[in-house]
Amino acid sequence: MTAPTPTRDDQFSFGLWTTGWEARDQFGLATRPALELAAHIRKLAELGAWGFTFHDNDVVPFDATPEERQRIIDQLKAVTEETGLVIEMVTTDTFAHPVFKDGAFTSNDRSVRRFGLRKVLANVDLAAELGAKTFVMWGGREGTEYDGSKDHFAALERYREGIDSVAGYIKDKGYDLRIGLEPKPNEPRGNIFLPTVGHALAFIEQLEHGDIVGINPETGHEQMATLNYTHGLAQALWSEKLFHIDLNGQHGPMYDQDLVFGHGDLISAFFTVDLLENGFPSKPGAYEGARHFDYKPSRTEHETGQYDSAAANMEMYLMLKERALAFRADSEVQEALAYSGIEELAQPTLAEGETLADLLADRSSFEEFDADKAGERNYGFVRLQQLAMQHLLGFRA
Amino acid sequence: MTAPTPTRDDQFSFGLWTTGWEARDQFGLATRPALELAAHIRKLAELGAWGFTFHDNDVVPFDATPEERQRIIDQLKAVTEETGLVIEMVTTDTFAHPVFKDGAFTSNDRSVRRFGLRKVLANVDLAAELGAKTFVMWGGREGTEYDGSKDHFAALERYREGIDSVAGYIKDKGYDLRIGLEPKPNEPRGNIFLPTVGHALAFIEQLEHGDIVGINPETGHEQMATLNYTHGLAQALWSEKLFHIDLNGQHGPMYDQDLVFGHGDLISAFFTVDLLENGFPSKPGAYEGARHFDYKPSRTEHETGQYDSAAANMEMYLMLKERALAFRADSEVQEALAYSGIEELAQPTLAEGETLADLLADRSSFEEFDADKAGERNYGFVRLQQLAMQHLLGFRA
Amino acid sequence: MTAPTPTRDDQFSFGLWTTGWEARDQFGLATRPALELAAHIRKLAELGAWGFTFHDNDVVPFDATPEERQRIIDQLKAVTEETGLVIEMVTTDTFAHPVFKDGAFTSNDRSVRRFGLRKVLANVDLAAELGAKTFVMWGGREGTEYDGSKDHFAALERYREGIDSVAGYIKDKGYDLRIGLEPKPNEPRGNIFLPTVGHALAFIEQLEHGDIVGINPETGHEQMATLNYTHGLAQALWSEKLFHIDLNGQHGPMYDQDLVFGHGDLISAFFTVDLLENGFPSKPGAYEGARHFDYKPSRTEHETGQYDSAAANMEMYLMLKERALAFRADSEVQEALAYSGIEELAQPTLAEGETLADLLADRSSFEEFDADKAGERNYGFVRLQQLAMQHLLGFRA
Amino acid sequence: MTAPTPTRDDQFSFGLWTTGWEARDQFGLATRPALELAAHIRKLAELGAWGFTFHDNDVVPFDATPEERQRIIDQLKAVTEETGLVIEMVTTDTFAHPVFKDGAFTSNDRSVRRFGLRKVLANVDLAAELGAKTFVMWGGREGTEYDGSKDHFAALERYREGIDSVAGYIKDKGYDLRIGLEPKPNEPRGNIFLPTVGHALAFIEQLEHGDIVGINPETGHEQMATLNYTHGLAQALWSEKLFHIDLNGQHGPMYDQDLVFGHGDLISAFFTVDLLENGFPSKPGAYEGARHFDYKPSRTEHETGQYDSAAANMEMYLMLKERALAFRADSEVQEALAYSGIEELAQPTLAEGETLADLLADRSSFEEFDADKAGERNYGFVRLQQLAMQHLLGFRA
Repeated sequence: MTAPTPTRDDQFSFGLWTTGWEARDQFGLATRPALELAAHIRKLAELGAWGFTFHDNDVVPFDATPEERQRIIDQLKAVTEETGLVIEMVTTDTFAHPVFKDGAFTSNDRSVRRFGLRKVLANVDLAAELGAKTFVMWGGREGTEYDGSKDHFAALERYREGIDSVAGYIKDKGYDLRIGLEPKPNEPRGNIFLPTVGHALAFIEQLEHGDIVGINPETGHEQMATLNYTHGLAQALWSEKLFHIDLNGQHGPMYDQDLVFGHGDLISAFFTVDLLENGFPSKPGAYEGARHFDYKPSRTEHETGQYDSAAANMEMYLMLKERALAFRADSEVQEALAYSGIEELAQPTLAEGETLADLLADRSSFEEFDADKAGERNYGFVRLQQLAMQHLLGFRA
Repeated sequence: MTAPTPTRDDQFSFGLWTTGWEARDQFGLATRPALELAAHIRKLAELGAWGFTFHDNDVVPFDATPEERQRIIDQLKAVTEETGLVIEMVTTDTFAHPVFKDGAFTSNDRSVRRFGLRKVLANVDLAAELGAKTFVMWGGREGTEYDGSKDHFAALERYREGIDSVAGYIKDKGYDLRIGLEPKPNEPRGNIFLPTVGHALAFIEQLEHGDIVGINPETGHEQMATLNYTHGLAQALWSEKLFHIDLNGQHGPMYDQDLVFGHGDLISAFFTVDLLENGFPSKPGAYEGARHFDYKPSRTEHETGQYDSAAANMEMYLMLKERALAFRADSEVQEALAYSGIEELAQPTLAEGETLADLLADRSSFEEFDADKAGERNYGFVRLQQLAMQHLLGFRA
Repeated sequence: MTAPTPTRDDQFSFGLWTTGWEARDQFGLATRPALELAAHIRKLAELGAWGFTFHDNDVVPFDATPEERQRIIDQLKAVTEETGLVIEMVTTDTFAHPVFKDGAFTSNDRSVRRFGLRKVLANVDLAAELGAKTFVMWGGREGTEYDGSKDHFAALERYREGIDSVAGYIKDKGYDLRIGLEPKPNEPRGNIFLPTVGHALAFIEQLEHGDIVGINPETGHEQMATLNYTHGLAQALWSEKLFHIDLNGQHGPMYDQDLVFGHGDLISAFFTVDLLENGFPSKPGAYEGARHFDYKPSRTEHETGQYDSAAANMEMYLMLKERALAFRADSEVQEALAYSGIEELAQPTLAEGETLADLLADRSSFEEFDADKAGERNYGFVRLQQLAMQHLLGFRA
Repeated sequence: MTAPTPTRDDQFSFGLWTTGWEARDQFGLATRPALELAAHIRKLAELGAWGFTFHDNDVVPFDATPEERQRIIDQLKAVTEETGLVIEMVTTDTFAHPVFKDGAFTSNDRSVRRFGLRKVLANVDLAAELGAKTFVMWGGREGTEYDGSKDHFAALERYREGIDSVAGYIKDKGYDLRIGLEPKPNEPRGNIFLPTVGHALAFIEQLEHGDIVGINPETGHEQMATLNYTHGLAQALWSEKLFHIDLNGQHGPMYDQDLVFGHGDLISAFFTVDLLENGFPSKPGAYEGARHFDYKPSRTEHETGQYDSAAANMEMYLMLKERALAFRADSEVQEALAYSGIEELAQPTLAEGETLADLLADRSSFEEFDADKAGERNYGFVRLQQLAMQHLLGFRA
């Protein structure tokens, strides 16, 4: 048995800032040179990627002249066409430059908010021009270190104003583009607004143009908040708001590690792939978008290792996919799922046509229900998990 | 200067399971006897509480006969009337009995779901009868240890069915009662559904009867997920869904400590009280409900210490309130808030009547904007925080 | 390929409190009845275990009379002899009874400390009588919720006095028994003394009788403090203090989950088994003791699930062992290890006989060293990790 | 009442990398210019600092020529003499340059280890020349992202060789200098060796020259691992190894925040100052070294805010000191401490001259001890904590 290799049908994509990371971190200088743009993209194509994504300033310097900007974009288009890669998503850097140190859409400084909005709108045009279908917005600097440094009500008002302005602009322009908000609990701010999948989903419900706004959850970001990424994806899918994903690896609450997908919590990654590939038992086929990686090659790696790590993401995903498909197809697993009542949960609690009055009149549901007896049910969840482990570790292959 | 003492105007309330906790924990036996119901309530009144709350099984045993149940409730009413305390909230225990070991509304076992729903409905009637205005639902067993043990789509469907059934019942009955969902990330389940304020707010938006459903966030529950409790309250208030609160103390991600309010993260508690008492700078007076404590007297304390800890919650709150009121009233603070641009955030990013086209045409917002210069602004957040610290520590009193 | 099954040569052992856990937790009642002692032990033997361990009060009630105690111990001996299982470790419960609510060896109450010491000494005699080689001491109640509630210097003095008293007693009696201290960061106390492997190792160095005192690290306890369990084992082995181990599963900093080994952080579990089975590259065969599991069957499981979960621990270990042995035997892995410089680390930094003066005189080491060039080395750690993942997931089997 | 101001008697010192941080972080560019060396030091003097500290590369560029290096050091000496500040500690940067990306003393690459050792030795000479008494070593890159990428036994062997080499060199040279190892759990490496106070203390015990090696614990580093900083200081003091401290603020396990001291967990900071100023109840006056801050001015602050934040550290410390002194001097607190048995813990468990045989013969200690009764003691810890809170918040001032 050998590890599978990717094809374009697998819909793998990479942020240029991921494989291209120069490995400058909080405590150290860059350990790698910048990659040359065309060579970088060609290499991703060669490795089996289907698409790529970028922040404006990954390719165009912050202070580029319009001419420089156009020249670079033309180059980008050329190499994209040459390689046949898809630019499936574009995003804007509203966090690196000092002007955004207190945020872009929620900066206390109104002139900064106006500048930030302009920068985003300019990039929306570019995203549409390049054929991207998703426009990700990570508000990494929208937040606080000190609770007193913001009017939190006003901050949410301004955040809403900003996102609705961008969404309204997309509609006005008739772009085939949807926004994906990316939650993160902290780093680089002490507390970031919209810290989790849940907060972002709730925020979207308050928007005027929320119909074209969904989320782009990142594995490690949820895990930094001790949360279960797959549960988060499930609630996003249930809310019909999973517009994009950022896959990577993380070891719980600490700095944002951006490891290769699967190199953090492996069992969680298995169930993430299971959800993305198999969908829910009661609703197969839930997610159809890109399999996008937002990770960083470890700082110990030089150029060879940079690309090895890109390949590792895809290989991890494909190995997990193979295991997840076999898991669901295994008749012993299916028996165990039935034993554990997995399908039973899809059955409504009230029977078809049953009213609450009917339920209240059903003495078998309460007055005559033997709770102690029902409490003795063996759910068999550990056996089911162990079957998953046998599959995951290749002992049923 | 001496610490303030509570009055009923302060609207302090306690869960009977809090002060009454017998201190049985995961690794040890009870260290305190059960408190006698009437004496317990009288003592809370004497200490300055305004109200109390309870789970059904805090007062009525799980397997009580209807007669026993009625006798206890009559006793409860009598002592409530005698003391003048308010029963401001009632909640249902759907987590302690083995029957709920896989959840109540999302158990894989449909008969358990039906039983759970019946138990809750019975308690809704009781809540209304006792004049409670809030019905809290903490789904402590709704969740998983293993991602494969649930159909996550079906789980959210069933959770929605359950909550909508209860909310619909409240409306049908014409009760003056609102539901408060209580999020928690984990413990006792490995991952609990609706793990944070955000997830619960997002869930509510998918309900048919979401208008009478809001949230009851607990300080420590958010902090167990590394999140900022005050930020969570702010988003709930902004969404008009902060129906109730559970105040306590916690030291970040570890087991649920349920310390006295303020005995965990004190600076965070200061800003929580600041928000509850002062509201937002742009929207004063945001919260008007009970100041409810959901904590546990430390296991080292016997009966004297049990009540000392109850008093400590109220004293902490009142000390923080005194500091928070003085903070906002201080002219130097007001100057510092202005310097930091706190009020400026309430100003919309687009001027009144300004369109996006206008913004795009405003060269001062982008083409002629000096981002480097704007990036040199000193926001003064540390000075502002230090003023807060001087107030908090009583050095400006 | 099928999952391996355990034999006694695998040296698997279980705490009776693990498989026997009745599933009473912080928020719920027991979901399972107590297991009958003899049947319980026979079942462990049947499943393939080699030994078992217990706290005194797992088998003998806290308030048993001497006669009751003797009767139970006789029964224990009989079934142990019958099954051929080994009682490899014994430990004492100094945490469940209210008397220990502020600790046993570090309680502020001297009479409690004296009682605690007596209880431990009585159990040391029992451990020796039953042939156990390790006496584990988990000071779960030694700690604080409030820093002011202890004299921390005195607490460490008393802890030292207590452990030295027990160790001295063992020597005096001539017992073939070593003490294993078990660190834990928190729960049930807010902060437990000797919170990590490191703190316990450092404490042991201050003992008079430290030569027979080592540690018993638990997977989840280190992970609750965000620490790497395998790193902790390595430091303990390097210090020649790894006397015993407690294997289980955990999802980072939250309540103590006590999942099946490998059901938490799987990659970490793989490298734990790799260390236990393969030792260090420069020092093979490092650990020879019991493979002891300290976990809890999930509360959703009834008796069938209880034993399924016991079997799952052993199966997980054996699957990981098979993968770890193949990993180290793979020539491509060996080449990758060499590429990454793994063996090079075993080479001293100073050459044999080289003095610091020699080093200072070696201009190639500094003055003429090309640091920039050396900084461009590709360490190949991601490729190496990916080879480990291919093995772990069975894609090189 | 107004906040106290610092004098040199307070022994406050700052790392030049702290106040001088240009605010380049993992996700953003520098927001502040480099401070001019002499002006920077003069300003610290003016604010009330007593000393300062630095990494070699904070003042001398990595690739400076010997002449540049000497010129800068001469300038440093001149301004130090002019201001009268003390250079109390010096440390070496073995983490920023790419050459150290896999560590300095534990890099898999032996030539890097030799270079790292040389760099450190050169800086030891400088530290001695400048009159520093402490030489801090933070091995920020000594660690792994992947457990397979190191031989962990060899890593500890090399770490020992490195530290012993430096300590031996100090002794050979006759320098009046002690080494302070600084633990950190993670960031920038996934797992750093010597992750906590405990691991570092244990490591020191294995050294040949451990007598001049102690630790330099940082508030936030312990809190990143969910640990109690004051407990860590206590164990270090008990081991006579607290050679230096790094004070700052942090909000639990997340990225390394380096907030102003006291701006993280305020109650913990109060008890830290209580320990540093009051010592232990049974051993007053435990710590006599510098009060050193290792923090970062928030990225939102420009030069004014940079220095405001420096002042805030000192003011926080002095406010907490005032509260801590008053707390211990308060007769009601003293009565509460006695009630809680704080002094009783200093009393040995065995009486003077009492043997274990005597204890075993003392029936009152066990056979006749009423454990249930003793379990009913009210320790009064919550009341004691509440008295501390009244002091901390200035309600007993």
